[in-house]
Amino acid sequence: MILSGPMWRVAVLGAALSVCLLCQTKPEDEVRGVLTAQQQAWNRGDVRRFMEGYENSAGTTFVGAEVRRGYSEVLARYLERYPSREKMGILTFSDLEIRMLGAAYASVLGRWRLERSAEAGGAVGGYFTLLLRKTDHGWKIFLDHTSS
Amino acid sequence: MILSGPMWRVAVLGAALSVCLLCQTKPEDEVRGVLTAQQQAWNRGDVRRFMEGYENSAGTTFVGAEVRRGYSEVLARYLERYPSREKMGILTFSDLEIRMLGAAYASVLGRWRLERSAEAGGAVGGYFTLLLRKTDHGWKIFLDHTSS
Repeated sequence: MILSGPMWRVAVLGAALSVCLLCQTKPEDEVRGVLTAQQQAWNRGDVRRFMEGYENSAGTTFVGAEVRRGYSEVLARYLERYPSREKMGILTFSDLEIRMLGAAYASVLGRWRLERSAEAGGAVGGYFTLLLRKTDHGWKIFLDHTSS
Repeated sequence: MILSGPMWRVAVLGAALSVCLLCQTKPEDEVRGVLTAQQQAWNRGDVRRFMEGYENSAGTTFVGAEVRRGYSEVLARYLERYPSREKMGILTFSDLEIRMLGAAYASVLGRWRLERSAEAGGAVGGYFTLLLRKTDHGWKIFLDHTSS
């Protein structure tokens, strides 16, 4: 069948829409993907890959019992507190609530849990609130408030 | 002096700019104002006015040792934990870091401290991360992650 005038346009529009529906990832899914990649990296014992979830910036901030500021400080804290696979345990994120804050920012409220042997400190867990920004390298965490 | 053509326009533009500079409040200052009003209300023992800083919505969430969801649940938590002026103590917010997340959202990282008598539970404090949204009734907190 040879499509004439309007039909041809409808077909092109239909094809464009299908491609769009297939290719577009929802921002919520991209944000969720950052946390999934972090969890997987942690559970491989790869703290540096885990850290790729954070923005490599002097402004990146981790709020725990104290405030650590700057990407390298946040990395240093993880390396101090979790110096071995045993101390790292098995990390699970759950109950993720992802909110888009306009097009360029997102927040995530969730639970974290670390399963560990008693010798390694035992199981710990709590809540976290993350703020992420859309960067040229994908969604990155610039504020992490974690409590236990 | 009667202003002719261009001079008259300059004068009008100048007047318009002055008015604008006087009347426009920076969003950061509006957000800071919400926290100042909360602190003042708390220190008058007025929990309900303090609660005006939060969005009156079922989605408003307080993350502490547990998650409380909905404006009335957040209010109930404050009334449970701080049933008297003595338990409320004197609240101070400090080290506020206000970030605008686009035009409609903002975050605040800060410290809180409650001075109280030993009988009322003693001094407590910690960090908080707030998320606020610009509403028709001004900036309102819809997520409060508070840790001690």
